[in-house]
Amino acid sequence: MVRTIELNKRQEHILQIVKDNGPITGEHIAEKLNLTRATLRPDLAILTMSGYLDARPRVGYFYTGKSGNQLLSENLKKILVRDYQSIPVVVPENVSVYDAIVTMFLEDVGTLFVVDKASRLVGVLSRKDLLRASIGKQELTTLPVNIIMTRMPNITVCRRDDLLIDAAKELIEKQIDALPIIKDADDGYELVGRLTKTNITKAFVALAEE
Amino acid sequence: MVRTIELNKRQEHILQIVKDNGPITGEHIAEKLNLTRATLRPDLAILTMSGYLDARPRVGYFYTGKSGNQLLSENLKKILVRDYQSIPVVVPENVSVYDAIVTMFLEDVGTLFVVDKASRLVGVLSRKDLLRASIGKQELTTLPVNIIMTRMPNITVCRRDDLLIDAAKELIEKQIDALPIIKDADDGYELVGRLTKTNITKAFVALAEE
Repeated sequence: MVRTIELNKRQEHILQIVKDNGPITGEHIAEKLNLTRATLRPDLAILTMSGYLDARPRVGYFYTGKSGNQLLSENLKKILVRDYQSIPVVVPENVSVYDAIVTMFLEDVGTLFVVDKASRLVGVLSRKDLLRASIGKQELTTLPVNIIMTRMPNITVCRRDDLLIDAAKELIEKQIDALPIIKDADDGYELVGRLTKTNITKAFVALAEE
Repeated sequence: MVRTIELNKRQEHILQIVKDNGPITGEHIAEKLNLTRATLRPDLAILTMSGYLDARPRVGYFYTGKSGNQLLSENLKKILVRDYQSIPVVVPENVSVYDAIVTMFLEDVGTLFVVDKASRLVGVLSRKDLLRASIGKQELTTLPVNIIMTRMPNITVCRRDDLLIDAAKELIEKQIDALPIIKDADDGYELVGRLTKTNITKAFVALAEE
């Protein structure tokens, strides 16, 4: 079970004393505050349990250097891609752009993955790619998707056991809508899932509802 | 300053005792655990400070009924739409679908908002709307966007001071990519921002990095 707590002024004060003077014994902290060791005991317990301070026998308390929200972020860092993944929707590489657009509507997804005959990932098609093609001069029913798709090695992938937060960073940094979730195979990438900003948004909502 | 802490077994045990027997005094909890009141003092302090338990003089400890991650979610509930909003990109309602698509590419956004002459929000255009139109039979350069846009009252809006988590829920429940952020005006909605799944994904990343 995990909780957030808000430190009170005395705890913040203790934290500052340990930051400035650590390692420092409980007795010395109490002296600096003109309080008894017994009075400080719950505060020191809270600061230690919450990970702000660590204590070593015969040495005293020292500051762990962790920032205020570090454990919140540590919790976030337990969420994996596999916890929020979606099923991938694929098209073969010789399908037409027109049929890819129809597939996108039928499946109601924002990204299609393109696979070769061995079912290995060879490309990614976003709504943006298909929209760009659709206002071009080429006939969509005869234009194959492998002309317009993003192809290896320009595809950013992730794996089921990656941290969701790392996948989220990739989506932001690369300015893309979805990542293929892959397994490494001898002859390339086996496609096993799809991770989108919708999945991240669902994770965000779930955090608040937990 | 806010922290998450993980309860130890004794604290979980105390919590269960209070759930089952509360309100209950510290002395009675100590009896049930065959421990002294002094030994339990830090544990009770932690459980009280973290919001699991509350204590009333001459009554004892009682369970607050808050679930494990409630305070984490309380933190999430401090984040507002205004903290992560983007600038809206607008087109007039008589612009052609073709020009809207070009605007979408030039501005590199996934959603355009349509405004009337008084700059009031009248429609929303997603990439999906424009892609659907682009494979239709109509000439894109003469088809005005107000034929294909989502229009009031079917537009889901949010306001700057709404909770980000509520906006995120709307994006998921309504299966949309972006919400217009509006201010109420006498003659309709004044458009002041744009909130997308990209913004939510950025908030998620920021939580982990705080």
